[in-house]
Amino acid sequence: MSFFASRWVPCPEHVHDAGEGLPAGFRAGAAAAAIKTPGVLDVGLLVCDAEDGVSAARFTRSGVLAAPVLATRDRTRLHALRVVAANSGNANAATGDAGLEVAIAMQQAAGAAAGVDADRVAVASTGVIGVALDAERVTAGIEQAAAALHRGGDVELTEAIMTTDAFAKRASLSVDLPSGSVRLSAQAKGAGMIEPAFATMLCFVQTDAALAPETADLLLGVCVKRSFDRISVDGQLSTNDTAILMCSGASGVEVAPESADELRLGEALDALLRMLALMIVRDGEGAGRTGRVVVRGGDQPTAERCAREVANSPLVKAALHGADPNWGRIAQSVGKAVPYGAPLALDITIEGIAVCRDGAAVAYDEQALQAAATGAEIEYEVGLAGDGAEAEVFFSDLSHEYVTINAEYTT
Amino acid sequence: MSFFASRWVPCPEHVHDAGEGLPAGFRAGAAAAAIKTPGVLDVGLLVCDAEDGVSAARFTRSGVLAAPVLATRDRTRLHALRVVAANSGNANAATGDAGLEVAIAMQQAAGAAAGVDADRVAVASTGVIGVALDAERVTAGIEQAAAALHRGGDVELTEAIMTTDAFAKRASLSVDLPSGSVRLSAQAKGAGMIEPAFATMLCFVQTDAALAPETADLLLGVCVKRSFDRISVDGQLSTNDTAILMCSGASGVEVAPESADELRLGEALDALLRMLALMIVRDGEGAGRTGRVVVRGGDQPTAERCAREVANSPLVKAALHGADPNWGRIAQSVGKAVPYGAPLALDITIEGIAVCRDGAAVAYDEQALQAAATGAEIEYEVGLAGDGAEAEVFFSDLSHEYVTINAEYTT
Repeated sequence: MSFFASRWVPCPEHVHDAGEGLPAGFRAGAAAAAIKTPGVLDVGLLVCDAEDGVSAARFTRSGVLAAPVLATRDRTRLHALRVVAANSGNANAATGDAGLEVAIAMQQAAGAAAGVDADRVAVASTGVIGVALDAERVTAGIEQAAAALHRGGDVELTEAIMTTDAFAKRASLSVDLPSGSVRLSAQAKGAGMIEPAFATMLCFVQTDAALAPETADLLLGVCVKRSFDRISVDGQLSTNDTAILMCSGASGVEVAPESADELRLGEALDALLRMLALMIVRDGEGAGRTGRVVVRGGDQPTAERCAREVANSPLVKAALHGADPNWGRIAQSVGKAVPYGAPLALDITIEGIAVCRDGAAVAYDEQALQAAATGAEIEYEVGLAGDGAEAEVFFSDLSHEYVTINAEYTT
Repeated sequence: MSFFASRWVPCPEHVHDAGEGLPAGFRAGAAAAAIKTPGVLDVGLLVCDAEDGVSAARFTRSGVLAAPVLATRDRTRLHALRVVAANSGNANAATGDAGLEVAIAMQQAAGAAAGVDADRVAVASTGVIGVALDAERVTAGIEQAAAALHRGGDVELTEAIMTTDAFAKRASLSVDLPSGSVRLSAQAKGAGMIEPAFATMLCFVQTDAALAPETADLLLGVCVKRSFDRISVDGQLSTNDTAILMCSGASGVEVAPESADELRLGEALDALLRMLALMIVRDGEGAGRTGRVVVRGGDQPTAERCAREVANSPLVKAALHGADPNWGRIAQSVGKAVPYGAPLALDITIEGIAVCRDGAAVAYDEQALQAAATGAEIEYEVGLAGDGAEAEVFFSDLSHEYVTINAEYTT
């Protein structure tokens, strides 16, 4: 199966799935440090070998920031990162000053192991909140991972950052730019505590294209907004979300600002991150079916709020799970998003079948609607009065497995 | 078991559980009109026999208002209601002009049956959204219910408005006021699509005390804010929420504004509505355990947002279900409620056991915490920097049964 396996994220013509392997100038490795489960990879290390490597980063907006987010945001040169050290099994969040010390120890250990200054080392953690992360174990894991660095290490790195993820989220693409061919790869994790604004979600992206820091920042910023910022598993914003783009320049292909190269690379990055984001939704804890809601009309904040309310409604999500085309719950969610807004001239379609127009039910083929609701990907369109605004959110269904996973996570 | 069966809602000393039966001046009845399931009560009628009966009403804030809400809000004298006609099995929402005609037909049928002008008739519906309500069936049900009116009809009225409710939510209290003894009764329904701002929730309240319209409005408004507005089953705002207080004055006890009588009656109404609200949470679709989160400190909007985020977090709710004292999810929810607010000086206790202080984990007795998490009612306290503000929300857990109920509702 191709990486681009959704009608919602077509593969651009100039992009090809290269299977696995990091771009030139990158190596990765992983180790089992007994943070998650003994014998399972839970510490990963990613190194850019280019001395002049360039980077960009985005973090969670949460008011409760994990120690690794604080250490990376406040103690590194975010546009010149060359190393990422990550662990799963423990988020190192709500751990206070002691937790920050552990995050700094991770930076120092990874910098020493890779021969890079600590202010060019990002750290990232994911897992349980409020439990001390063992500094000795995690730094020993980093050293062990450093001994295992290789070009094909994206596979182990991806495995090392998984928590409740049911499958690996990773891609390695070749991208044909006007100025030459480059590689673009990414490793992501995320299955729960997802939304809004890209959530318990880590994503590391690499390219051997040469980008100025401003270009890297622009591309990552735009593409994160169109991908990880547009998904919801459970409406929960994480303490640890981190997305990092690193550029080695090792291909020799320079991507100049406002060039055709930048446009094409941006298209590739956009498709890559949207597909990874959709994979996170598909892997939403216990998820079976994926929904996409597109709200058109109204002003932008209203369209945005409506899309989020629909995507996060447990009633809509449970109906999606049960293949129940209960569009009344879509109407109800939109009503919640627009308090005191009655009467709303509300249109609703499910998989292209109009079910509600101007706020009232319309006649439709019930059998066709029921059949459409059984697909793996269900699209809901909501129309509001006025035009111009548009907002989309991808979301998972709400299943028994979600409850099972989340009722029994720490105990 | 006494009606007041929670440590969170003590019974005021001057209030006594009278079992069942409406206050003097009220009669109710119900009928099986084949709107829900043939043979099951699904239409209820409530009549105040006092020509000078006084009332007050509150409705959902949803931008998608059901036809009965529009008909009641826009076509009646809300301070002089004498009749309520209600049905379950169909919300008559998102049904357009045709739906409004049905709601008006219900008003007219109920007014004619009770000998009251239609502008003194409230209508209320609950059930599936977006399906036409059969006018003939529901008006025939109203006529049949009118033939069955009696003082003990609160029992049948309560039954007739239930949808996914697992148990009846009803009380009949005697209240000792300084000026004499009065009766206070209420019938409520609600189990899903609950929050914020009192949600798929109907509640009819009656008293034989004599109140001015302004007093009735004040008492209902304050008490709704402290009860149905403080609960969440699934964070969903309904299209149909309606709360109506009716006063017959038949006891001859006058409740003057700013009197000791008003204070005592207010205390009784407050306890009554808070207990009914808590019963709705307890009956949250599939609910097993009930949570109460109290946020103290910060400013009022922040405390409010934090309490709502905790109460609506599917992760917190799933942990509550699993008796898992995973307080990291409380911290994460608060972090979501205060974006860009880091670092938060956040304190958390669960059942009085401190688990987090100043944003970091503190040592606690894990066995004691685990034992406390297995109770039927779990209290979470969140402290923010600053003081003065306080917000509470009662919420249900997230169970497998919630998913089962909501994945298979219409189909």
